[in-house]
Amino acid sequence: MTRFARSALIIIDLQKAIDASYHAVHGPRNNIDAESKIARLLARWRTDKRMIVHIRHDSTFPESAYRPGQIGNCFKEEVAPLPGETVIAKTTNNAFIGTPLEELLRASHVQELLIVGVSTNNSVEATVRMAGNLGFDTYIVADACFTFAKPDYYGRPRSADDVHAMSLANLDGEYCTVIETETLLQNASASGPR
Amino acid sequence: MTRFARSALIIIDLQKAIDASYHAVHGPRNNIDAESKIARLLARWRTDKRMIVHIRHDSTFPESAYRPGQIGNCFKEEVAPLPGETVIAKTTNNAFIGTPLEELLRASHVQELLIVGVSTNNSVEATVRMAGNLGFDTYIVADACFTFAKPDYYGRPRSADDVHAMSLANLDGEYCTVIETETLLQNASASGPR
Repeated sequence: MTRFARSALIIIDLQKAIDASYHAVHGPRNNIDAESKIARLLARWRTDKRMIVHIRHDSTFPESAYRPGQIGNCFKEEVAPLPGETVIAKTTNNAFIGTPLEELLRASHVQELLIVGVSTNNSVEATVRMAGNLGFDTYIVADACFTFAKPDYYGRPRSADDVHAMSLANLDGEYCTVIETETLLQNASASGPR
Repeated sequence: MTRFARSALIIIDLQKAIDASYHAVHGPRNNIDAESKIARLLARWRTDKRMIVHIRHDSTFPESAYRPGQIGNCFKEEVAPLPGETVIAKTTNNAFIGTPLEELLRASHVQELLIVGVSTNNSVEATVRMAGNLGFDTYIVADACFTFAKPDYYGRPRSADDVHAMSLANLDGEYCTVIETETLLQNASASGPR
């Protein structure tokens, strides 16, 4: 197991907008303690002075709770950036498109990406797929991500756990490795630089 | 409905390797007539002299049936390129990464992408997500793609149709529009250039 010495913790779209009721129109989210798990990872990455990147979604859709200028665009309190931490704004699902994320990671000689946030099958999955295909050693922290219930294209209802688990199955071993918060905290070396 | 006048038909990874038995280890594929539907689209795009791009997966994994130098790397006969048609080789899931695909599409002033091939939830989905996020008007032709049965990350069995339908639900309206072959053929104008 890697000790994540040259890793970046990348937190995707964990803004107040994710609590907007329209996300749960087909049923509730899963992993209700994902925020507290991300907060634990964040605290550890801060203590160890490893790289942290906060991705903020600045939606261009007028009706989106993620649109700038609204309270929904603000980060959730428990995972908000501290002054001086890197924040990268994006306007698509994928944190690499139209942003300096790849350039920043390459310049910082980061090879391992730990990706957390929302939603598992949307912006997280789009970013994880791209990260793996760009050649980064990519990990998705399963219990530090969440999503919502959603019917499949033919109308069959799927719970948030169903949607989450199918997304993880598509990603694991093909674009990334699926890991859990506790495993990550136990294995991350405290001695790594950055 | 658009008439697809300035469109490219992009065929993903439809090589003999997709018939290797290991793809069906968890159960059979869906859409068994996808190849014949792609052949119909291909014939129409050729007649209308619209842009066609064949994406060939050149796997770097020694055990993959897609590795160059094996019969599996060859295109399936019914959808094989004609001499002079564009073939782009890729080594990751995503047809845009490490390839000149985006540059070619921009230089050709193509705005609409019709994406078909395999597998729905893997290389097709990775490419569709990227295409949409790059700003192309992207369509996935649902009955001209297929995939295989696969358990979700927690081991629940999912049929090929289940996997396909969840993938389409993740893509539709967020990264692309889902369309069917017949609808596409009925709407594509015969008068469009390219």
